[in-house]
Amino acid sequence: MKLLNSVERCVDEALEGIVSSNGGLVLLEGHRVVLRSDLQLLKGKVALLSGGGSGHEPAHAGYVGKGMLSGAVAGSVFASPPPGSILAAIITLWQNGVSGILLLVKNYTGDRLNFGLAAEQARAQGVPVDMVIVADDCAFVQPSKAGRRGLCGTVLIHKLAGALAEEGCPLEGIVAELKKATKSIGTLGVSLSPCSVPGCQPTFQLSPGDMELGLGIHGEPGIKRSKIASADEVVKIMIDHMTDPFSQSHLSLKSGDTVVLCVNNLGALSCLEMAVVTRAAINYLMERGVLVARVMSGPYMTSLEMAGVSLTLMRVDEELLRLFDAKTTASAWPNLSSLCVSGRKLYMKPAERPATSDTKSEQGSLDFRPILENVCKTLLQRQEELNTLDRAAGDGDCGSTHACAANAIQKWMQTSTIPGNPYLLLTALAGLVEEKMGGSSGALYSLFLTAAAPHLREHFDGAHWAKAMNAGTEAMKRYGGAEPGDRTMLDALCPAIEELMKLSTAPSGGHMTVLQAAVEKSEAGAESTCYLTAKAGRASYIASEHLTQPDPGSVAIAAIFRAVFEALGEKSQ
Amino acid sequence: MKLLNSVERCVDEALEGIVSSNGGLVLLEGHRVVLRSDLQLLKGKVALLSGGGSGHEPAHAGYVGKGMLSGAVAGSVFASPPPGSILAAIITLWQNGVSGILLLVKNYTGDRLNFGLAAEQARAQGVPVDMVIVADDCAFVQPSKAGRRGLCGTVLIHKLAGALAEEGCPLEGIVAELKKATKSIGTLGVSLSPCSVPGCQPTFQLSPGDMELGLGIHGEPGIKRSKIASADEVVKIMIDHMTDPFSQSHLSLKSGDTVVLCVNNLGALSCLEMAVVTRAAINYLMERGVLVARVMSGPYMTSLEMAGVSLTLMRVDEELLRLFDAKTTASAWPNLSSLCVSGRKLYMKPAERPATSDTKSEQGSLDFRPILENVCKTLLQRQEELNTLDRAAGDGDCGSTHACAANAIQKWMQTSTIPGNPYLLLTALAGLVEEKMGGSSGALYSLFLTAAAPHLREHFDGAHWAKAMNAGTEAMKRYGGAEPGDRTMLDALCPAIEELMKLSTAPSGGHMTVLQAAVEKSEAGAESTCYLTAKAGRASYIASEHLTQPDPGSVAIAAIFRAVFEALGEKSQ
Repeated sequence: MKLLNSVERCVDEALEGIVSSNGGLVLLEGHRVVLRSDLQLLKGKVALLSGGGSGHEPAHAGYVGKGMLSGAVAGSVFASPPPGSILAAIITLWQNGVSGILLLVKNYTGDRLNFGLAAEQARAQGVPVDMVIVADDCAFVQPSKAGRRGLCGTVLIHKLAGALAEEGCPLEGIVAELKKATKSIGTLGVSLSPCSVPGCQPTFQLSPGDMELGLGIHGEPGIKRSKIASADEVVKIMIDHMTDPFSQSHLSLKSGDTVVLCVNNLGALSCLEMAVVTRAAINYLMERGVLVARVMSGPYMTSLEMAGVSLTLMRVDEELLRLFDAKTTASAWPNLSSLCVSGRKLYMKPAERPATSDTKSEQGSLDFRPILENVCKTLLQRQEELNTLDRAAGDGDCGSTHACAANAIQKWMQTSTIPGNPYLLLTALAGLVEEKMGGSSGALYSLFLTAAAPHLREHFDGAHWAKAMNAGTEAMKRYGGAEPGDRTMLDALCPAIEELMKLSTAPSGGHMTVLQAAVEKSEAGAESTCYLTAKAGRASYIASEHLTQPDPGSVAIAAIFRAVFEALGEKSQ
Repeated sequence: MKLLNSVERCVDEALEGIVSSNGGLVLLEGHRVVLRSDLQLLKGKVALLSGGGSGHEPAHAGYVGKGMLSGAVAGSVFASPPPGSILAAIITLWQNGVSGILLLVKNYTGDRLNFGLAAEQARAQGVPVDMVIVADDCAFVQPSKAGRRGLCGTVLIHKLAGALAEEGCPLEGIVAELKKATKSIGTLGVSLSPCSVPGCQPTFQLSPGDMELGLGIHGEPGIKRSKIASADEVVKIMIDHMTDPFSQSHLSLKSGDTVVLCVNNLGALSCLEMAVVTRAAINYLMERGVLVARVMSGPYMTSLEMAGVSLTLMRVDEELLRLFDAKTTASAWPNLSSLCVSGRKLYMKPAERPATSDTKSEQGSLDFRPILENVCKTLLQRQEELNTLDRAAGDGDCGSTHACAANAIQKWMQTSTIPGNPYLLLTALAGLVEEKMGGSSGALYSLFLTAAAPHLREHFDGAHWAKAMNAGTEAMKRYGGAEPGDRTMLDALCPAIEELMKLSTAPSGGHMTVLQAAVEKSEAGAESTCYLTAKAGRASYIASEHLTQPDPGSVAIAAIFRAVFEALGEKSQ
């Protein structure tokens, strides 16, 4: 089921959508014809007209603009446009003073006949019209009499023709150049799903997990079905088939050749897959000694919502590359760099991270080991209790996560010298919990420690500790997006920090009193979360009546404060 | 099943694909970080860094380039990137001499924490870093504490920030401007299908024919499920919800406001549907008195292969529009016109088709009625015979198609004066068969008549008839793509035309002899198709052993020749 208003009007509405969103376009009344709105700029130049069935958007209306098409004629979905509309477009362009009109037509019988008929009718009226047929399909080893089908290579022909016309090349000159270029283009597609014309069943069936090679852009049969292989393998099969000299429809490609590569989303392949396929195609071409000059990757000639991708290769020389690089205002032409793809270095080395330690200012010989040991011991002891609390509201791993951190810190203490400078200590701990604790908790603790640390580089008095703890808490609030009262660790942290701020003014001997009050505030804060509704974190998705126990994160904070206090008490005894 | 090489490596390979195809990008070794390859141009300017989970391509690597981001940091699919990589990007930019670094972050807890942590770490090292959080989701009437989610509006913020940074605006200036802009942006999405993280089951279930409004870009629950409505209705529901003043997360929008509209393909919606939705959104906004300044429509912030679309509205003033219009080299930014969308005329009148008749040169008083009558009678008599022949090889309508043409010509003869000038007659018949006969046959006959006609404007002697018939045949061959021997109408037509060429040299009295020979050649040609393998047209898909009778198209041609000959014989008696 599609997101449309009506099957009958969908093409007309789509054209209106495309034209209204692009200031450079206009529709021809009574026809499905999109023209440049600045036709006066075409005076004396060759006008370029393309078109075909709809369902291949952005082809062809998306390629109308300065430097590409002058106009595009749309048929119904997957059906050739009527000759009357093609003729109306030709006559309108002619009356605007162009020097001639070139029709760029995909090789499908319907399009050949209808564009051909309009061309003959225009010629009978004395309008100089010529036609170039694009037949870039490399699927069939022995193509039928109808010849190779016209596929995404048409877009490249639009671009070359557009650049030539824009620089004033006469009709016969453009035709001669394009007839050479069409011989240098090959395309092959692979589909992972069918597509369906609005109001109809899918054009064919394909089991999930299967792929079909070489389908036409209307879902016409391809050449081979198989299980979906890896992107690298699929790309290799495609390029090898496209360039196989034993196939009558192959594109000749040898080591040393230069190509433009177009990786075309047939409709519904994810951009992630598109990028992986693009990498595979570039790499395999380079492996074959081919110089990849430019790459375009995106939806250029789609088959409605078909999940699939086609590869188009165009052998280029300097002149074709110059035309390819020329500017255009066409809305569907990508914003490409004109740097050569092959031969570039993809990677650069990251800048050295400046060393954390500045031995001059960051001195200190405090002994943090007993404190860290007590914190770790406490967290490991309370692991199951915290997990149980978390099972009521979250994924039940709060205790395990804290135990992870504790284990990591214990291991670190066994193998490293513990810095005596608090800045260095907190920075080291920040790195440890970021790396080993994981999840939101790891990030939040690490944020606290990272933001606190810089305040304790040189001075370690109560005022600086207070400032540091406050900075850490503010960082947690800022990036975590929660506030006290939201049933998070902040409910235990903030009241404690408020108390710790008194360290700034407390006499040196009163620090333990402040700290004790902070611990008690913290424990009371944790207890208070029993009565709070979760507003942040995972627990916010649980109805509040199910939450009757304290928030495990806040319990952990209170436990850490208590452990620090105990260790300091031991020390000071 | 996806077209990838491995679940583990898919993000790294996708980034390589994006970077290799864009000359302006480079990867940071050991990290999933994409940077501009021309970092030296950033000296003294503010660097812009964004990023987030993968699976939203082209976000964010596609927005790296001059005039947009300086770099993008990618996490695993739908997972926030590690702070270490964010910090590595920050430090590398800083070492390249930028004046400060601004982090542009989508409002998701993981991104806030990880970008926040990297920011604090960088600040601790003395790097001037600031952060702007984008929270543009309009889904929830009462958003949770975590606030509105960051969606496609982020891309617009990238653009504004990029333009400001490029013109040398300092860090605090950019932050101030963006904080205003983020308040002017709202986004809402609708999904017709889920998506699946590589290697995993779909993120949620949605029955075919259902849609869900307001999903997050990772498939987080939306606000409402319903049957898929028409595009116009869906768009109206979306815009009304986005701008509903009773919703806490609404975007204030009133008549007279000017907006930029971004219609974002969430992954797998067909471009046809995208265009229909774009039209609906523009029309509804204009209906509400909103001036639509610019429209972008395409895949900008995807959710892997989710079939769906989001609408982003940004209220703009002249200054924001100027920044929006500024040039960028970022590969995923569209090629937009800077003409205002509202107030443009979408339609122009087609040029008048010059009148077919030029009374001076195109005279003649030949009586073609008996010939036409006999041709029509013959085709109607042989209708069933031709259908039967066609059933063996095609869709069995060859007789009916020819009868259609005969009926149309008979009806025309009853109501119109038959031109006595052969140019005018053939032109009129060309129009009739094009319009009434239909299909490939209609186009082919019309081509023949159209190409033949101009040779018979003034002179009606045997030589001109021969030239005309030959020109018609050549046009059929050129556009139809078949040749004699391919088991088509050409097998009856070409031998006859070869004979008719003798009209050029035959004495006036010998014309009937030439014509008789042509009829016989035509009949022999038709008979010969029994022994031919079909190489063009629908019959070319049938194995040749099933084709033992003549090609119906060639039989019809021979019958027409015989009818013309008979009528001329009657007349000349």
